[in-house]
Amino acid sequence: MKFNNKHVIGKNVKIGNNVKIGDNTIIYDNVTILDDTVIADNCSIGEPLNAYYFEKKYENPKTIIGSGSLIRSYSIIYASNIIKNKLLTGHHVTIRENSQIGENCQVGSYSDIQGDCEIGDNCRMQSYVGVGKGSNIGNYVFLYPFVILTNDPTPPSETIFGVSIGDYSIITTSSVLLPGTQIGKNCLVSANSCVNGKYEEDSFISGNPAKLIGKLSKMPFFNEMKIRHYPWMNNFDRNMPWNIIGYKEWKKKND
Amino acid sequence: MKFNNKHVIGKNVKIGNNVKIGDNTIIYDNVTILDDTVIADNCSIGEPLNAYYFEKKYENPKTIIGSGSLIRSYSIIYASNIIKNKLLTGHHVTIRENSQIGENCQVGSYSDIQGDCEIGDNCRMQSYVGVGKGSNIGNYVFLYPFVILTNDPTPPSETIFGVSIGDYSIITTSSVLLPGTQIGKNCLVSANSCVNGKYEEDSFISGNPAKLIGKLSKMPFFNEMKIRHYPWMNNFDRNMPWNIIGYKEWKKKND
Amino acid sequence: MKFNNKHVIGKNVKIGNNVKIGDNTIIYDNVTILDDTVIADNCSIGEPLNAYYFEKKYENPKTIIGSGSLIRSYSIIYASNIIKNKLLTGHHVTIRENSQIGENCQVGSYSDIQGDCEIGDNCRMQSYVGVGKGSNIGNYVFLYPFVILTNDPTPPSETIFGVSIGDYSIITTSSVLLPGTQIGKNCLVSANSCVNGKYEEDSFISGNPAKLIGKLSKMPFFNEMKIRHYPWMNNFDRNMPWNIIGYKEWKKKND
Repeated sequence: MKFNNKHVIGKNVKIGNNVKIGDNTIIYDNVTILDDTVIADNCSIGEPLNAYYFEKKYENPKTIIGSGSLIRSYSIIYASNIIKNKLLTGHHVTIRENSQIGENCQVGSYSDIQGDCEIGDNCRMQSYVGVGKGSNIGNYVFLYPFVILTNDPTPPSETIFGVSIGDYSIITTSSVLLPGTQIGKNCLVSANSCVNGKYEEDSFISGNPAKLIGKLSKMPFFNEMKIRHYPWMNNFDRNMPWNIIGYKEWKKKND
Repeated sequence: MKFNNKHVIGKNVKIGNNVKIGDNTIIYDNVTILDDTVIADNCSIGEPLNAYYFEKKYENPKTIIGSGSLIRSYSIIYASNIIKNKLLTGHHVTIRENSQIGENCQVGSYSDIQGDCEIGDNCRMQSYVGVGKGSNIGNYVFLYPFVILTNDPTPPSETIFGVSIGDYSIITTSSVLLPGTQIGKNCLVSANSCVNGKYEEDSFISGNPAKLIGKLSKMPFFNEMKIRHYPWMNNFDRNMPWNIIGYKEWKKKND
Repeated sequence: MKFNNKHVIGKNVKIGNNVKIGDNTIIYDNVTILDDTVIADNCSIGEPLNAYYFEKKYENPKTIIGSGSLIRSYSIIYASNIIKNKLLTGHHVTIRENSQIGENCQVGSYSDIQGDCEIGDNCRMQSYVGVGKGSNIGNYVFLYPFVILTNDPTPPSETIFGVSIGDYSIITTSSVLLPGTQIGKNCLVSANSCVNGKYEEDSFISGNPAKLIGKLSKMPFFNEMKIRHYPWMNNFDRNMPWNIIGYKEWKKKND
């Protein structure tokens, strides 16, 4: 009952094989959607930049949505984004202009990626995640609900010090990363922390203001199997490339 | 000017008497909407589960929306939810699959109930409330804006330890309830707290990390009438079943 | 490709010159939209109050949207709001009834202004800002993401003690302002603070619970130019009335 072809398609839009587009969705000019992707109802893909409303000669920049993606309803992806294969979004998501998002990423409902961001492969952003302009996120990074990556060290100003987060790191719910914060690889930030500064690989960071508590791999975080949970890649593989073969085996093959 | 019958109705949809359905709203297969309910514009009721997009033989599970409900615009209620009478929602609400919601509940704008939740009667969730998968919420519970109920004790993992909250408890704004937290009846969590562990009836809980401060009923919280405010049921009755007759009288009748 | 005149316009709607209205947008009865304003797709302007759904003789109160405004898609502005010129909104914004908003204000995506608020000129509310009912916000005030202005001192109750914020003050990300909090002019609240009480002009406020740290203008906050950043008006002028001529010159002219 959906997919009644009641959507609107702009000029120079390239649509791959087996793509489904929902009702009341608009695909703007110069968007490319690769094979096997679903765009649900009430979405806007290639949402025009500000100039569209005011300049007669506005030309929408190119936008690419990778194959095998599922964009859920009421989501808005601005023009000029380059998104690799298998993006999965919740509802009411906003992705502002000029970001690059790697493959197999998830963006939860109500999340807002503010533009000029680089996000690696296999990242999971849950609901209500705010990724400030100019953020740099590695691969296999998890951001939990209400996490916010800020960027202005002296608000308000024109300075943007984006946050960077290394591969495999996890920022848990309601934590604030202050402007210019650098989180290394394999780190964990505990819930409701307020983090500033630079943290090395394998840090466990907690508090408001947050402090380095110690090496994450040495912390007594045990999972249901009663084994040390971190590095988590040994214990979690859903939708990860090491699914079935395990992280160690996969790592060996890929190094 | 709304209610122009410009909506879409699926198969095997049962619609009661005096139901209004807004424009651009979709009611999916196997949804039942009871009498006197209003579904505003741009909603999706019985939103199909993931398999809908990929499986040809997908059959939408049954969904029930109780009588006398008002679902405001841009809200999405997934298939398989069973919701009792008099649900009132804000705008842009998302209720994921497989939850049971009692009667006379309110869910504020941008709130996200993530699925597999049990929510009692007469609960009030305000704006931006995130109720994690597997949460268990009693009756007459208040959740204020940006409250989040989490569930994964070792993120990321497959373990879900849902939060539980007892009858009459109040979780105030921007507080995080960590996985497996158990809040008893008649408790109050102060704003911006980060709560872990198990708390008995009548606890006042505060801080990051949160601590038990003392018995809520002994705390010096006085209202405008200069009387002790908690238990709040003696002092607040808007839209509660003890409206007019008062809590004590109502309680006597119902015990 | 937008602006196909696929919108719905109510009775007694007054639309100025050079106004654009997007597809699937509804303009309800008794709305006035002044010149040069853009209302994007899927918006609702003059959203009717609760009584609309239940009373046959409901009459929508008057709503005014000033000139030169841009309301982005999926935004809802209730009837009875009076909004001056040059409002700029993000997507998925909600502005509830009976507020007054000054000129040249910005309201970011997913922000929720709950009604009965007074907001001055030149304010910037970023994404996910929750402005509680009865708030009173001066001019040139900045509210960063996930900031919430609360109002109920003994939740739940019928008492509303709105928050007030003086001119030029800045509340940074994820901070909670407790009911009745009064922030003077030229103050800064640091990220993830939980603020209660009354603060004089030029305060720097920080922590959970928040404390007065000292005079903001004496704090060692230096910007990229290595000069003291606060008062910020000397160092930031984007979209401000002192743009080009500078704050001091502008102030002299306007005093």
